[in-house]
Amino acid sequence: MKTVRSYVAGAWAEGGGKAQTLVNPATEEPVAEVAGGSIDSGDWGRVVTHARTRGGEALRALTFAERGQLVKALSKLVHANRDELIALAIANGGNTRGDAKFDIDGASGTLAAYGEVGIALGKTKFLVDGDAAQLTRSVRFVGQHIAVPRQGVAVHINAFNFPAWGMMEKAAVALLAGVPVITKPATSTALVAHRMMELVVEAKILPEGALSFVAGSVGDLLAHLGGQDVLAFTGSSDTAQMLRGQKDVVAQSVRVNVEADSLNAAVLGRDLARDSEGYSLFVADVLRDMTQKAGQKCTAIRRVLVPAEMVDAVKEDLTERLGAMKVGDPSREDVGMGPVATKKQQEDVRAGIARLREEADSVFGGDGSVAEAVGVPKGKGFFVSPVLLQVRDAKTATRVHAHEVFGPVSTLIPYSGEAKDAVAIVARGGGGLVSSVYSDDRAFLGDMAFGLAPHHGRLFLGSSKLAGHAVGPGTVLPQLVHGGPGRAGGGEELGSLRGLAFYLQRTAIAGDKPILEALFNPKSED
Amino acid sequence: MKTVRSYVAGAWAEGGGKAQTLVNPATEEPVAEVAGGSIDSGDWGRVVTHARTRGGEALRALTFAERGQLVKALSKLVHANRDELIALAIANGGNTRGDAKFDIDGASGTLAAYGEVGIALGKTKFLVDGDAAQLTRSVRFVGQHIAVPRQGVAVHINAFNFPAWGMMEKAAVALLAGVPVITKPATSTALVAHRMMELVVEAKILPEGALSFVAGSVGDLLAHLGGQDVLAFTGSSDTAQMLRGQKDVVAQSVRVNVEADSLNAAVLGRDLARDSEGYSLFVADVLRDMTQKAGQKCTAIRRVLVPAEMVDAVKEDLTERLGAMKVGDPSREDVGMGPVATKKQQEDVRAGIARLREEADSVFGGDGSVAEAVGVPKGKGFFVSPVLLQVRDAKTATRVHAHEVFGPVSTLIPYSGEAKDAVAIVARGGGGLVSSVYSDDRAFLGDMAFGLAPHHGRLFLGSSKLAGHAVGPGTVLPQLVHGGPGRAGGGEELGSLRGLAFYLQRTAIAGDKPILEALFNPKSED
Repeated sequence: MKTVRSYVAGAWAEGGGKAQTLVNPATEEPVAEVAGGSIDSGDWGRVVTHARTRGGEALRALTFAERGQLVKALSKLVHANRDELIALAIANGGNTRGDAKFDIDGASGTLAAYGEVGIALGKTKFLVDGDAAQLTRSVRFVGQHIAVPRQGVAVHINAFNFPAWGMMEKAAVALLAGVPVITKPATSTALVAHRMMELVVEAKILPEGALSFVAGSVGDLLAHLGGQDVLAFTGSSDTAQMLRGQKDVVAQSVRVNVEADSLNAAVLGRDLARDSEGYSLFVADVLRDMTQKAGQKCTAIRRVLVPAEMVDAVKEDLTERLGAMKVGDPSREDVGMGPVATKKQQEDVRAGIARLREEADSVFGGDGSVAEAVGVPKGKGFFVSPVLLQVRDAKTATRVHAHEVFGPVSTLIPYSGEAKDAVAIVARGGGGLVSSVYSDDRAFLGDMAFGLAPHHGRLFLGSSKLAGHAVGPGTVLPQLVHGGPGRAGGGEELGSLRGLAFYLQRTAIAGDKPILEALFNPKSED
Repeated sequence: MKTVRSYVAGAWAEGGGKAQTLVNPATEEPVAEVAGGSIDSGDWGRVVTHARTRGGEALRALTFAERGQLVKALSKLVHANRDELIALAIANGGNTRGDAKFDIDGASGTLAAYGEVGIALGKTKFLVDGDAAQLTRSVRFVGQHIAVPRQGVAVHINAFNFPAWGMMEKAAVALLAGVPVITKPATSTALVAHRMMELVVEAKILPEGALSFVAGSVGDLLAHLGGQDVLAFTGSSDTAQMLRGQKDVVAQSVRVNVEADSLNAAVLGRDLARDSEGYSLFVADVLRDMTQKAGQKCTAIRRVLVPAEMVDAVKEDLTERLGAMKVGDPSREDVGMGPVATKKQQEDVRAGIARLREEADSVFGGDGSVAEAVGVPKGKGFFVSPVLLQVRDAKTATRVHAHEVFGPVSTLIPYSGEAKDAVAIVARGGGGLVSSVYSDDRAFLGDMAFGLAPHHGRLFLGSSKLAGHAVGPGTVLPQLVHGGPGRAGGGEELGSLRGLAFYLQRTAIAGDKPILEALFNPKSED
């Protein structure tokens, strides 16, 4: 059986913490062993120092264009090994083939996009930020902002749901910025991330120390971080709070970015007739977000706001489509949805459904139990049925706005059809990653966009003419920022050049105009 | 005697916490009373809600240009009452007239600059962030980033050293962004801030709820903050850690900005002859930063790196100038330096000097005691002599890089004259707000700038031709970012438009191209 190990300080090593067995969540059969920990407390300092010095110095010696080429090479490497990685995602992640492609192609696509961003930045080792500004009445005294790589390490703690995409979207931006990465996948689905790390090491694409990989626990790694280091986390709000409040992280002003819980909403406009393309887009997006990755997406639609007079139609259309979907062994082509990733997730999702049902009725899927999963031995696998609920009283409902159930679960919330009412309901979620609005009424779209913007990092405006041209709100795109205020963690990633800022230090340089011009705006060498 | 009170929820109220007496730090005579606290725990929620709703809604109803006009009006108000405010700063802050002008004019100048920034943004309620980006192969599906005001409140906790500037530089940016402010001055020097608040209330410039003022303790105010709110703090690292680690602040993803300790360095290049203008600029800047505001500036030069062969000359020149400066009653025109702000500061500075002297010898000022302060009754006042030290062994010195002594104290550190050595020494400070380099050698300036940039929010490159044209590194300018990594708190303020980002939510909007163009790039109304 495969052994998942760490790659730290330029060599393979055992993992941190205790040995663990990884299983296929559809069959519960073991698929890999995570090596028990031999990295002790003292070693973590050495791991960080190696990355910071060997990796950091090597990366900073390169131009943005050169680092862009490295990131592009990583994209090609992932793509070249797509089939093997898809098979691992199916075996260890409970992914359908479609789910697995979404993860793997998300990784290679984001790497490719950031490779191009780097190449476009050209032969430079720093970024010019804005124009020079005259600072006093003298024309001589000017200020110029620049941005340079932080001389630290980036620790990335990733979520279980996207072992490929999660690892590579964070790594792409950090490496392009010139900052070495220590990446830690969630243990339960670590097989895909581990194989990617093996491929990276074998291919010798990156300088030594540029990318380290931690299997299992990170021990006291965070206690070794300092003011040039950054910590990026994707996962639950509870873990985010624990990480962000860590004594050393606070004391050293370690930069922290968090992507956490989010009760993403989809709002249907009352102008969309049931036979309109906009309505079909809405139904397709809700359905995809409920079932893709068995609903284990931080961007999945959890709340579905429907004008009261349209609720029956929406229930009918979603119920029909959900009823036609087979749940079972995700390696089978006829199966539309696999299991959730772990026993713990299954328990959490079921408990979450029960909690929501205190204020909502089941429209489809009952309590989430699955009588018989297709192609799986009776009683095996961490399956949950897709569950569609409807709140009994939209005015008094609270759980639906506060409790993210991380599985194939969405809740219908009837509303008046007025933008201001929809905004008020969505805002009760306390800050989210993304919400979507479906309408062909520009005034309604505008009111919703400006109303929802303060509460979100991203919005998706679905309209009839967009059908067939757009990916849904659940897809994180490298061109757009990903993150959100409040409950969503207050973070921001990606967004093309915007994502680099987290890894760079912006510095204002004041001085004599001709000297600053010579230093920071030299003639291009291209 | 004047009573300092709070202005919250649209009315004057008693302060938070216990009653306190404010004194003149030169004479120790009482100058004002801070009213004892009648704001109890339940009231803080009301204070926050009033600011968020009344103040926030009123500000967000205005365009950036209209808010710019408000901020400009605040600038005029401060300037119109300059003489009264200067007198209060002398009486309650221990400021010389020059110190007081620096603070008051810093406030009105920053307000004026941000007023212009707002007016230039025009008749808009949101900012367009970058160009629209095509997101897939379809030309229809595009994304546009915008930035809108957060729908929360900004809590500003200010330092004692700049009661005017500190309050108004933060308020200027928040108000322009459309976010109401709850400002809390350091209690010991609150008189200037309190008078400014009285003037603002009397002048009825701002909408109700846009600016609240807390005298004394903030009680459990922070426990009432949520995901749309922000907290900005200027002060010591210890307090910063306490605030940043607060359970509710962490749990709600409250955005936090910190400006904390900083061991700012000035580096003299070996190319500057003693009779050069660049050398004179260096000496003048070090001297100003040691004595202006009695060294109580977060940007003051604490470490002075001098090529070994030039140390004797620098000591001679600084000693001569320091010896000519009178310490005493700051209201007297012949006095160059007043007391520090409080008894506690005096004790801290003296303890800090003693700590530095464990690894440094005194060049001027001994242990900081002042035998006789000019114009002050014997034994009265919180005076500290300017103290210039020199480390005994630059290789092994540690305290000089770790312990900010917040008074008229700087330490000479001999170095080789090589840029890489100077960078390594300065970097030992663990991140700073600003450092400065003095040289006419462009290669040296370039090596220093790129070497120091990762460790600083701002750099000042002093050269001979700049003499007479520049303000020194100690002056925070609205056009340039203020803040720094690591020990300096990891924050960023000001920098013209850059400073607004903290108060805005950036949101990516994806949708159909013609719809996005209509919503976010309408024809200008001007």
